[in-house]
Amino acid sequence: MDRLDFYRSLATESDQRILFFVIDGLGGLPHPETGLTELEAAATPTLDALAAAGESGLVTPVLAGVTPGSGPAHISLFGYDPLVWQVGRGVLAALGVEFDLRAGDVAARINFCSLDPEGRITDRRAGRIGDQIGAPLAERLDGISLGDSVQCSVRHVKQYRACVVFRGGGLDGRIADTDPQATGVPPLQPEALDPAATHTAALATEFIDRARELLSGEPVANGVTLRGFDSYHPFPSLCELYGLDPGAVASYPMYQGVARLVGMTIYPSKDEPDALAARVSEASRHDFVFLHYKGTDSRGEDGDYDAKVAEIESADSLLARVRDAFDVVMVTGDHSTPWSMRSHSWHPVPVLIASRHCRPHGGDGRFGESACVQGSLGHILSMDIMPLVLAHAGKLKKFGA
Amino acid sequence: MDRLDFYRSLATESDQRILFFVIDGLGGLPHPETGLTELEAAATPTLDALAAAGESGLVTPVLAGVTPGSGPAHISLFGYDPLVWQVGRGVLAALGVEFDLRAGDVAARINFCSLDPEGRITDRRAGRIGDQIGAPLAERLDGISLGDSVQCSVRHVKQYRACVVFRGGGLDGRIADTDPQATGVPPLQPEALDPAATHTAALATEFIDRARELLSGEPVANGVTLRGFDSYHPFPSLCELYGLDPGAVASYPMYQGVARLVGMTIYPSKDEPDALAARVSEASRHDFVFLHYKGTDSRGEDGDYDAKVAEIESADSLLARVRDAFDVVMVTGDHSTPWSMRSHSWHPVPVLIASRHCRPHGGDGRFGESACVQGSLGHILSMDIMPLVLAHAGKLKKFGA
Repeated sequence: MDRLDFYRSLATESDQRILFFVIDGLGGLPHPETGLTELEAAATPTLDALAAAGESGLVTPVLAGVTPGSGPAHISLFGYDPLVWQVGRGVLAALGVEFDLRAGDVAARINFCSLDPEGRITDRRAGRIGDQIGAPLAERLDGISLGDSVQCSVRHVKQYRACVVFRGGGLDGRIADTDPQATGVPPLQPEALDPAATHTAALATEFIDRARELLSGEPVANGVTLRGFDSYHPFPSLCELYGLDPGAVASYPMYQGVARLVGMTIYPSKDEPDALAARVSEASRHDFVFLHYKGTDSRGEDGDYDAKVAEIESADSLLARVRDAFDVVMVTGDHSTPWSMRSHSWHPVPVLIASRHCRPHGGDGRFGESACVQGSLGHILSMDIMPLVLAHAGKLKKFGA
Repeated sequence: MDRLDFYRSLATESDQRILFFVIDGLGGLPHPETGLTELEAAATPTLDALAAAGESGLVTPVLAGVTPGSGPAHISLFGYDPLVWQVGRGVLAALGVEFDLRAGDVAARINFCSLDPEGRITDRRAGRIGDQIGAPLAERLDGISLGDSVQCSVRHVKQYRACVVFRGGGLDGRIADTDPQATGVPPLQPEALDPAATHTAALATEFIDRARELLSGEPVANGVTLRGFDSYHPFPSLCELYGLDPGAVASYPMYQGVARLVGMTIYPSKDEPDALAARVSEASRHDFVFLHYKGTDSRGEDGDYDAKVAEIESADSLLARVRDAFDVVMVTGDHSTPWSMRSHSWHPVPVLIASRHCRPHGGDGRFGESACVQGSLGHILSMDIMPLVLAHAGKLKKFGA
């Protein structure tokens, strides 16, 4: 029996409300002078109290040794096997800007770029143009006609980023990126990775050519590259699976997109604690609230230990402001972003679950990587978090008699 | 390669004898005044000594977050993937009363109930009639004729409970329960949950009508409801898989049934320690003895902390009396039944394995939920216990060369 079908068969109602708090890139690595990770160095009274009264452990995102991107990392946290339920960055980008995707659509991310007269890339991000330039450029590309049988839509995402959606019969998203990840060379041609995608790759080539014509007068953003092609296959929603009415509070389109993919109502927020707390309060009618905090990951990618510590403390105080409205609180990261690696990593991430049905396990009274090694949740896979949270909230009934 | 086939391919003989002791609903939750679970509060010198000399850990029954019924919980403990090897309550009930099921039989549980003159249920359990009334009523229903091609057998189980087995060609157990779980309404009709079960559902309807005729003169038990319909698909036995000659000492039909399902010889017992110990001694020719202790689960479902503590102590002294006859001793629960939840739960269950090949792991010298978090067995799934026990008993040979 399929794992999701199995859990679906156990879903039942309860009046318990769940806070699902994802502190992006939470896990870290020790500072050589103190031996403490970013989380261990941070003053986190709220996380510590919840871990002491609740259960803690370590979560492996996706599978042992796998460094996940934000898409699969969140998909696993939401309880979907990330090897079964894969989704491309293009689809996530389109969902993130509220594009109404339909099954079979092919989506890709667009980067505006700068090309020299010979068509070679001089800047892969077109001088990081702002929204005031990027938005009207995206609008100019929207509705490029590729013939009667295909509909082609472009939406602006942020700064130099946009996305394109192709709609029509028989499209296939198995197409390679056109960004050569280098300057001084022209963009690559969209290459079909499967014979079934040949037609779609030809449409993408035509789109790129037409875009270049429309952008030819632009001083900086006179070209585009396409990445993360993917066909859209709708996910069974958290409502279909578990009867949840989930809301998502997130500041970045990427996380709004992955939340929309699983059927959440989106409460977009500014990227700062006051705004996030206010939006959580507005989302209070939902029995499941996904709250996403971004700053930790960004500072980890900057390699800035102290700044990541400060962001963790900020996430802790945000949690203090919102947690009382919930019966079950889960906190983890989608992955580790250790300051010393300046990137996502495969390291397991601390997790805590607090509810009225916990087996607290002393430890040292702190929420951190070392303490969580001995937590009562043990070492689990990220896709196991959702069923555990549902169980704590009384939303899974007994299996068999 | 299928998991069971894999382990089967490794099975080999040894003279080691295994005690497989299941303390039903063993796992618990802390008492708010002491922070100790039922097991942690109990005086358990035998369990403590075995855990100190052996290996301990925590077992997740079935899968993360899943609260199992007794059927799937035991099936997993016996080493079968509970999502692959599912079995309905009707089949377990029929096996529990030693009915000689054959592949393709459809079994269901019967509850005698009270109906008013309009056919509405006034008591779903017929006033909880005792065996002296229930047994002859079941006998009266045995052999109801539903035509030449179908054989229909009824057996008494306990009090107001019985079971029915339909035997014939093309039967299908995908039929909904007829118990409406309410009074003041008539029983439901047996509804086919799959078109293939239409014929069987019609037979069940006819059976219920005939039963009502035969019970029409009864003062209390004048109707029946049917639940837990299931087709019987024989399991590969523990003998076929591992060459074991297993015996089961259990006081309740349910556990005798699940033991029979995997090919154990049953030693029914009264539900008290002296009787159980004597039956274990009678079962001494078996190289694998499954011993089931029920009281812990019952007191957990009562929500009675002290009584569950006392039952755990009673199980401990039972273990002291029987353990010397075995080379390998495994002790766990099929699931947790925390006193504070008054029900089965998903919480991992303490487990210990003692043999001459152990890696003891200090801990605090006690067998309990907190100590087991750090046990050398780690956190495992219940279906992994059987192969571990077989390995400790020298009954699994090397894989590959």
